[in-house]
Amino acid sequence: MADAIVTPWEVKGTVDYDRLITEFGTSKITPELKHRMEKLFGKLHVMLSRDIYYSHRDLDVILNELESGRKIFLYTGVGPSSEMHIGHVIPMSFTKWLQEKTGANLYIEVTDDEKFMFKKERKLEEIERIADDDILNVIALGFDPEKTFIFKDTEYIRNMYRLATRVAKEVNFSTVKAVFGFTNSTNIGMIFYPTLQMLPTFFEKNYCLIPAAIDQDPYWRIQRDIAEKLGYRKAAQIHSKFVPALTGIGGKMSASHPETAILFNDDEKTVEKKVMKYAFSGGQESIELHRKLGGNPDVDVSFLWLKYLFEPDDKRLKQIEDDYRSGKLLSGELKQILVEKLNAFLVEHRKRKEQARKLVEKFMHTGALAQKMWNTYYE
Amino acid sequence: MADAIVTPWEVKGTVDYDRLITEFGTSKITPELKHRMEKLFGKLHVMLSRDIYYSHRDLDVILNELESGRKIFLYTGVGPSSEMHIGHVIPMSFTKWLQEKTGANLYIEVTDDEKFMFKKERKLEEIERIADDDILNVIALGFDPEKTFIFKDTEYIRNMYRLATRVAKEVNFSTVKAVFGFTNSTNIGMIFYPTLQMLPTFFEKNYCLIPAAIDQDPYWRIQRDIAEKLGYRKAAQIHSKFVPALTGIGGKMSASHPETAILFNDDEKTVEKKVMKYAFSGGQESIELHRKLGGNPDVDVSFLWLKYLFEPDDKRLKQIEDDYRSGKLLSGELKQILVEKLNAFLVEHRKRKEQARKLVEKFMHTGALAQKMWNTYYE
Repeated sequence: MADAIVTPWEVKGTVDYDRLITEFGTSKITPELKHRMEKLFGKLHVMLSRDIYYSHRDLDVILNELESGRKIFLYTGVGPSSEMHIGHVIPMSFTKWLQEKTGANLYIEVTDDEKFMFKKERKLEEIERIADDDILNVIALGFDPEKTFIFKDTEYIRNMYRLATRVAKEVNFSTVKAVFGFTNSTNIGMIFYPTLQMLPTFFEKNYCLIPAAIDQDPYWRIQRDIAEKLGYRKAAQIHSKFVPALTGIGGKMSASHPETAILFNDDEKTVEKKVMKYAFSGGQESIELHRKLGGNPDVDVSFLWLKYLFEPDDKRLKQIEDDYRSGKLLSGELKQILVEKLNAFLVEHRKRKEQARKLVEKFMHTGALAQKMWNTYYE
Repeated sequence: MADAIVTPWEVKGTVDYDRLITEFGTSKITPELKHRMEKLFGKLHVMLSRDIYYSHRDLDVILNELESGRKIFLYTGVGPSSEMHIGHVIPMSFTKWLQEKTGANLYIEVTDDEKFMFKKERKLEEIERIADDDILNVIALGFDPEKTFIFKDTEYIRNMYRLATRVAKEVNFSTVKAVFGFTNSTNIGMIFYPTLQMLPTFFEKNYCLIPAAIDQDPYWRIQRDIAEKLGYRKAAQIHSKFVPALTGIGGKMSASHPETAILFNDDEKTVEKKVMKYAFSGGQESIELHRKLGGNPDVDVSFLWLKYLFEPDDKRLKQIEDDYRSGKLLSGELKQILVEKLNAFLVEHRKRKEQARKLVEKFMHTGALAQKMWNTYYE
C-alpha cells in the first residue's frame, strides 16, 4: 500500500483505516461500545453496524454521561468550498440520528471564512452563495429546528471573538505548523482559523461529541490539549471513513472533480450518466468472465455506496453482495440498482430542499436554540 | 549612541529620530509642508512647530486632498494594557486639533484583543476594566461626538470580520515575522491581530491620515503594500517622537513602571513627589555650580515635558529655556513649574472625565458616526 496523505485539506491514496487509528492515537469502536449504544438508542444505525463509523475519542465518556441521564451536545460543520455532494450525507444523517436518540443540542458551523481564505482565487461572494445552498441541503436532511443552531463564522464571530482570543492565546505557530503543516507562506487568517473551528466545542460546559470524517481529527487534538485549562471539557469524537470517490476507493469525493462525486444538484440523467461512466467496477472484463469468476464488491464503488448510504436493509445488501460475488449480478445491473436508489434519494431531497427555504430563519435565528445563541456572548 | 530598539511593543535605548526616518523609509516634515498646513489650518499646533510631529508618509497627498476640498478621515488607537499616562496626550490632543481643523471623521480603535493576547498573565476582565477607563480619558480630551467613533475590537469585530478575512488573506507569516519579529512561539491570535489594526484604514474610501508615535509605523507598511489591491487607499501617517520617560530620554513612558510616567489618575501629591524624585534633571550637582555653568534643557525631562505638552506659549518656553541654560533657573524651580502645569491639567482632566461618563454611549453607539458604523458591515 502506498502511503496515504490524510489532513483536513487533503486525502490522497488508499487509506489504511486501522493505521490511521494508530497514527492519530484514536481508539477503535469496540463491540462493547456498540452494545452500550444499542441499549441506549435501540437498533444501531447501519453506519455503526457496518463499521463506517469505526474510530473514536472518549465515546465511552459520552456514553457514561448519557447512561447517567446527563446532557451532551453535538457539533459538526460544513465547509462551503464547492457544491455539496452525497459524501456529506454520512456525517449529517448520522448526526441527525444521534440528535434523535439523545435529544442533544446540535451546533453546525459553516466555515465560510476558512473556505474563502484557504485559496487565493476564491471570492467571498462565491463562498457565500455556496454556503447558502449548503445550508438548504443541511436543513433538508432534517434536524430539530428548536435544538439546532446553524451559523456562519463571518456572522457569529460577534458572539465568539472574545472567547476566541482566549483560545488563540493558548495555541502558538509551532503547534499549528506541526498539526496542519502550515508554513511561512500560510496567510495569517488561516493561521488564526483553527481557533474558530475549535470554538463550538466550548459552547456548553457539557461534554461535546463530534461526528466527522477522521481527517478532521487534528483540530480536536489541539482542543483536547487546551480545553481543561480554559475550564471546559475535552471534546469527544466519533470518526467515519470516507465515502469512496465514484472513480475508486483511493480518495475522497470532491465537487471540484465532477467525475468523482454525485452532487445534490445533479439531475436524474446526470446521475445515471456519471454512475454508468465513472463508477469504479469490481467486475470482470467480459460478461462471460464475470459469470464465471464473479465480481469483487470490496472495491466496487456502486456496492460500497449502497453499503455506506443507500441500502439500509442488511438482508437485501447481503443478497446483492452474494449475487455480485457469484457472478449472478452483473456490473451494469449493480450500477442500475445504485442509480435508482440515488435518484430516489435526490428527488426526495430536492423536494425537502425547497421546503427548507422556509426554515432557514428558524435554524439560524428564531428557533429556541438559535435565539439563545444570539443572546449569548462567549467570554 | 547605542543602538535603539523601536517596535510597536518595545522602545529601548536613546532614539536617533533622524535615523528612524532612514530606517523606516518615511519622510521628514519639510518647512514647505508646514507652510501648506499653516495656510490650511491657521497657526500651526506647537507639536508641529516644535518638531514633535516630525516624520510622515504621504502627508503631501493628504494636503492635496484638503486643498482640493475633498474629505479625509483620521484614525488612531488606544492599547489598554495599563492605565493611561500623559504620554498619551500627544497623539490624542494633536488628533483633536486635526479634527477641529479638517472636520474629518475620526475612528479610535481600542485594541483590547491585542493587549489581552500579547501577555500570558493578563486576564480579559482586567483589560476590559482598563479599556473602559481609557475610553473615559479619551473622551475627556474632547472630540466631536457626532464625528468620532470609539470602538473595542472585541465588539466591533462583528462588522469587521468579513473584510478582515480579505485583508488577512493578503498577509502571510513571513511578512509578520519580518515586520514584527513574530516567532514560532507567537500565539495565533497575535499573528492574526495586525489584520484588525490595519482594518480601520479601510473604513472609508477616502484617504486616511494616522497620527501616531513612530513605533507604530510597521503596521502601515503592510497596509500600504496591500491597500490598493483591495480597492482602498494607502494610509498616510504623521509620526511623533516619544514623550521621554520621567526618568530620562532613553525610553518611553510606561504605566507599568510608575517612576517613568505620570498617570491620569495620579493625585496632586503623587505628581509632585514623582517629579521631584524621578524627573531626570539637566542641572548641575550643586546650586553653586548650576549658577555658574547653567543647566542643559536638551536632556532635562521637566523642560522637555513643558516643550512637548504643557507650555504652549513659545515666548514663555524660550524664557524658561534661556533662564535654565544660564543658571538663573534652578532644577527644583523648573520642576515646580512642571508640577503646577501638570496638576492644573490633571485636575481639569479629571473633572472632564467625570462628565465623560455621560458621553460614552454617544461616542460608541448613538452619535451620528457611531450609528452609521454599527449599521455598516464591511465586506
